[in-house]
Amino acid sequence: MQEHGGDIYSNRGLIDFSANINPLGPGEKVMEALKKSLEDVTAYPDPKCRALRAAAARRESADPEQIICGNGAADLIYTLVLAEKPKRALLCTPAFSEYEKALRTVGCEIRFHERREEEGFALTGRYLEELTDDLDVVFLCSPDNPTGRCIEETLLWEIAEQCRKKQIRLVVDECFLDFTEDAPWIHHELWIRENRMLFLLRAFTKMFSIPGVRSGYGVCSDTGLLERMQEARQPWSVSIPAQAAGIAALEDELLPAVTRQLISEERRHIMEEFDRMGIRYYPASANYILFYSGIDFYEQMKKEGILIRDCRNYRGLGKGYYRIAVKGQEDNEQLLDAMRRIIKRRKESSHGKANHDTGNHV
Amino acid sequence: MQEHGGDIYSNRGLIDFSANINPLGPGEKVMEALKKSLEDVTAYPDPKCRALRAAAARRESADPEQIICGNGAADLIYTLVLAEKPKRALLCTPAFSEYEKALRTVGCEIRFHERREEEGFALTGRYLEELTDDLDVVFLCSPDNPTGRCIEETLLWEIAEQCRKKQIRLVVDECFLDFTEDAPWIHHELWIRENRMLFLLRAFTKMFSIPGVRSGYGVCSDTGLLERMQEARQPWSVSIPAQAAGIAALEDELLPAVTRQLISEERRHIMEEFDRMGIRYYPASANYILFYSGIDFYEQMKKEGILIRDCRNYRGLGKGYYRIAVKGQEDNEQLLDAMRRIIKRRKESSHGKANHDTGNHV
Repeated sequence: MQEHGGDIYSNRGLIDFSANINPLGPGEKVMEALKKSLEDVTAYPDPKCRALRAAAARRESADPEQIICGNGAADLIYTLVLAEKPKRALLCTPAFSEYEKALRTVGCEIRFHERREEEGFALTGRYLEELTDDLDVVFLCSPDNPTGRCIEETLLWEIAEQCRKKQIRLVVDECFLDFTEDAPWIHHELWIRENRMLFLLRAFTKMFSIPGVRSGYGVCSDTGLLERMQEARQPWSVSIPAQAAGIAALEDELLPAVTRQLISEERRHIMEEFDRMGIRYYPASANYILFYSGIDFYEQMKKEGILIRDCRNYRGLGKGYYRIAVKGQEDNEQLLDAMRRIIKRRKESSHGKANHDTGNHV
Repeated sequence: MQEHGGDIYSNRGLIDFSANINPLGPGEKVMEALKKSLEDVTAYPDPKCRALRAAAARRESADPEQIICGNGAADLIYTLVLAEKPKRALLCTPAFSEYEKALRTVGCEIRFHERREEEGFALTGRYLEELTDDLDVVFLCSPDNPTGRCIEETLLWEIAEQCRKKQIRLVVDECFLDFTEDAPWIHHELWIRENRMLFLLRAFTKMFSIPGVRSGYGVCSDTGLLERMQEARQPWSVSIPAQAAGIAALEDELLPAVTRQLISEERRHIMEEFDRMGIRYYPASANYILFYSGIDFYEQMKKEGILIRDCRNYRGLGKGYYRIAVKGQEDNEQLLDAMRRIIKRRKESSHGKANHDTGNHV
């Protein structure tokens, strides 16, 4: 069973649609910075990540003291949990499994808020009712993984306000936000000034296609928390290549803009094709799409040379849910062709068995 | 105050004798592997570090299941502590401060075994008396940081046996072992077969001069512990460049051999010169030397353009202790020249004040 997407090491030679990485690659600036950083690896990394924090602070209109860097965003999830040692947490289902895994390391009691299939897995006002005083931390993700949905802005604001009043740490994982069409107009970093409980999680991994380098950061105005996080881990978590790549990524405004354009077009195209094929999918705002099918697409696609994400191990999903990345046009056409072939074979075989599918979905 | 050596970011433009890194650099094989690894950074790292663990297992005559890789050796210290959640630990003074910092993250009670100045900070039989049943974990370092001393082989064996019998996790940090003249004949990895409590810590950082990359590993036959460690942290701790550099380092047998030769000669030379200058030092087996002086060498050397390690923040040391790395001949001569100038100025100034130093040491 897949634990996460992107495990190309168990699946050599397949086209990887299981990890949600920018199909345009890291871009020249980041690659040049990575190459140049290799000249400096005989020194220890700056434990304070001074240059990267300064660059991130400029981007976030924040103080450098309000930024903490990590060995990928995942490092920050674990470090925050270790620094906070929460007793009670609220997670959504379905959700990225590392929130739960991190909370388990400190023996935290976890409640689950069920996002419902019949609501398209959207976060709704029901969530507010579960934000009780006794919670220490909650994790949200927008756009959400694996559903690709953004949390509605007024709801997110209301959640942030409730968390501020009730002193619940609110971690909003925005690692995929850059891929949404609304990204240029969404600035939750401005909320952190007034809201010390809010912690925003950012990654270079997805937009700059460098999951192998491990670089991300968090923004929070509770600088005491960031200091405790720094104490809860080794001083040299963030490597020299990771710091250099992050700085270069923050200087590159062109790649995210071009990527948003590409992903937006390709996402729309894939969803239209899914409509034509009769695939039940969940309208997405990020660079991946969740769909449901009675066909075992994971195994069938593997035979077609394509690796997709089988989502059955997401709490709250189960057998039949699959996630695909939105990649470049050529790859996407290969994916769609393979899916069409699989559906065609399935239809032929069920006709043969006179075992007609009466629904509209495959 | 310096928290660790190697902080060149607060000390731009100085020659760095504060971090103990191989003066010969990473070597061609490792640099080539790092460059090549940048072609692969658009993939997630292998969470299981399969290729690196296989290479380390060959080196250690162990099974790959007995190897765990880390984002530098320091990552493994924190992860082991988080996985074990020890209640009571025994540390030596002086010692590398990250053992204590890691234990504090889980609220562990820490006892300290004092290594005594009058015994040259050697570990002695006194240590065995403090290995009581109620301990969960102990950390040792050989060669030790900051004293540069190796633990005597029969004593270490006796400690390992006691820990095995009393079910105390024994972490032996051998990150500097490769620099000792005895390295080719010391194989504590063979002890792990019979002793599940022993955890050996290895790093590529020091010998292969890549502290900026973050790559190390641990060897232990308690595979249950290694699985718990894997669960206690994010899946992608070890970056793609770090895995590639480690594999290349394990294939390079020449660089460690040449380095041992160089360091051995230079270390002997520096200690002889220290004798001539009347510097009180502690005979070292690694690539660094601890010394004591009434002169404020940290500040004085800074004025000479050289950064050394002020060891006053080591628990059990205090003002007057300094550590210098053993580097290449040219750098070492600069260090010695600067020290001679400082001592000469001090002597002239105290003669001027008719305030004669009556001891043999400066």
